[in-house]
Amino acid sequence: MTIVEVGPRDGFQSIQPLIPTDAKIALIEKLHGAGVRRMEATAFVSQTAVPQLADAAAVFAGARALDGLDVQVLVPNRRYAERAIEAGARHLAYVLSASERHNLSNVRRSCKESVEDYARIVEALPEGAAMRLNLATVFDCPFVGQIAVEASLALLDVLLPLLPEAEICACDTTGRATPDRVAGLFEAARARFPQVRRWAYHGHDTYGLGVANAIAAMQAEVDVIDASFAGLGGCPFAPGATGNVATEDLVWTLGQMGIDCGIDLDRLIEVSREAAALAGARPGGRVRTAISARLGLATVLDTPETFG
Amino acid sequence: MTIVEVGPRDGFQSIQPLIPTDAKIALIEKLHGAGVRRMEATAFVSQTAVPQLADAAAVFAGARALDGLDVQVLVPNRRYAERAIEAGARHLAYVLSASERHNLSNVRRSCKESVEDYARIVEALPEGAAMRLNLATVFDCPFVGQIAVEASLALLDVLLPLLPEAEICACDTTGRATPDRVAGLFEAARARFPQVRRWAYHGHDTYGLGVANAIAAMQAEVDVIDASFAGLGGCPFAPGATGNVATEDLVWTLGQMGIDCGIDLDRLIEVSREAAALAGARPGGRVRTAISARLGLATVLDTPETFG
Repeated sequence: MTIVEVGPRDGFQSIQPLIPTDAKIALIEKLHGAGVRRMEATAFVSQTAVPQLADAAAVFAGARALDGLDVQVLVPNRRYAERAIEAGARHLAYVLSASERHNLSNVRRSCKESVEDYARIVEALPEGAAMRLNLATVFDCPFVGQIAVEASLALLDVLLPLLPEAEICACDTTGRATPDRVAGLFEAARARFPQVRRWAYHGHDTYGLGVANAIAAMQAEVDVIDASFAGLGGCPFAPGATGNVATEDLVWTLGQMGIDCGIDLDRLIEVSREAAALAGARPGGRVRTAISARLGLATVLDTPETFG
Repeated sequence: MTIVEVGPRDGFQSIQPLIPTDAKIALIEKLHGAGVRRMEATAFVSQTAVPQLADAAAVFAGARALDGLDVQVLVPNRRYAERAIEAGARHLAYVLSASERHNLSNVRRSCKESVEDYARIVEALPEGAAMRLNLATVFDCPFVGQIAVEASLALLDVLLPLLPEAEICACDTTGRATPDRVAGLFEAARARFPQVRRWAYHGHDTYGLGVANAIAAMQAEVDVIDASFAGLGGCPFAPGATGNVATEDLVWTLGQMGIDCGIDLDRLIEVSREAAALAGARPGGRVRTAISARLGLATVLDTPETFG
């Protein structure tokens, strides 16, 4: 079971006050210290659109220095893919949407243009570089609602031949997927594309189904799951709309299920507490809070008659 | 799919400042107006232990007046069962724990004594009265940790013959169950006790698995699920330790899955917002917040480049 810690990208990007680069790298080092071995450390994107990630090259360099850490960086188009590669990145995450309308809003181009860009990125990919393909809005689009499975599969029909070894990640961008739909998509995708080596799942906890959907993905034999420490990732323009599934919720759940993901929960909760306290952060998740409450209040359980 | 709204009992009991009886009944009426047709409206229990529920008889009378509402009340022992019946209750929920240590703490007697009490309650049950049997700590006990499935099944070996038509509810008291264990318990229980007519599930969202576990129960063919509006039910002595799975999270999820439970989400969210605002409440759940954010911020989705 591989957890990809995406907090330094998907979490930080939604925080308004700039987090000092040193502070970002310190958190990344602590995540690494907790056992995180794969991370989306930043994105190479427009500094105008996402000022928080303007320090991508420096953050990437800080993350790359850590032993045994597989550092992926997100890129929205060819121009930024080139910059990432120039900065030394050898694991890219390219994003496009199953929803045309969302793709236009998210990366400012049509799905067709995104596919063409992807083809050129793949052609220029350095020897040994790895690619993760993020398919956003495969379940639901904020603009047009539910997306049919076929829309995503049709996009993969075109994308997969360009780089058969790419890891394919289904993203529940709005958090409105339910476990049955997560399972259904992966089952249909596996059946149609048996050649894909690795499937991944990226979900949001906006409606409280973050862990439930991750478990559904795991049961569909997906063994790469994205998560964000402290559940960071809420949209800065939607107070209360929480972010990615919290890494600590996922690690705790896996632990309860007897599944090892190599991450130390206590150390993860420690660094997640720090992240939750960042100025402008809108933390999510439950486990950090529940365990903090237990640790702080040892007598909590000796209350009379709670009735179960 | 039947949802039992347990907020007026499990939610209110953990709130410290007394909620006026009229306010409780007004919330119960609004829940009924939203389509709730089964409710644990209160508990007949020691007023010293749970001062918040000292108005049980009045709240029960208010709930009973509502058209088509199946009102169950929780009782911890024979003495209070008698009081509930005197007050007119015809649907009791009796609670005992699979964990001896928890039973001692929760209802101040051994499991054996609880079983004996149950036998006497059953003997004195009025014609036509219904019984729900809540088995607490069947997955995990706050004092001794994980509970083996066999402990619960052994308890049911003794309890079931006393009243074969009782509804049996497995309660995840600590919120530490995972979907695999929820499914496992119900599968084992169904195999051993095919005579049981109705199984139910009562879970907490303390670790974020409230809805995930409810779905696992549903997949194990459990069609009665407890939930609490606004996710009320956190322990008053553990700030941050959230309560029951939120009714609105469950109703929203069922709606997304195309399952009708007869409850109007908009009206439910409206009354849940009121409950979340009660003095001393520690609300939980995600859907209330997510939908409130969406309603309040219509332009939220037109943000540039969020990358999915």
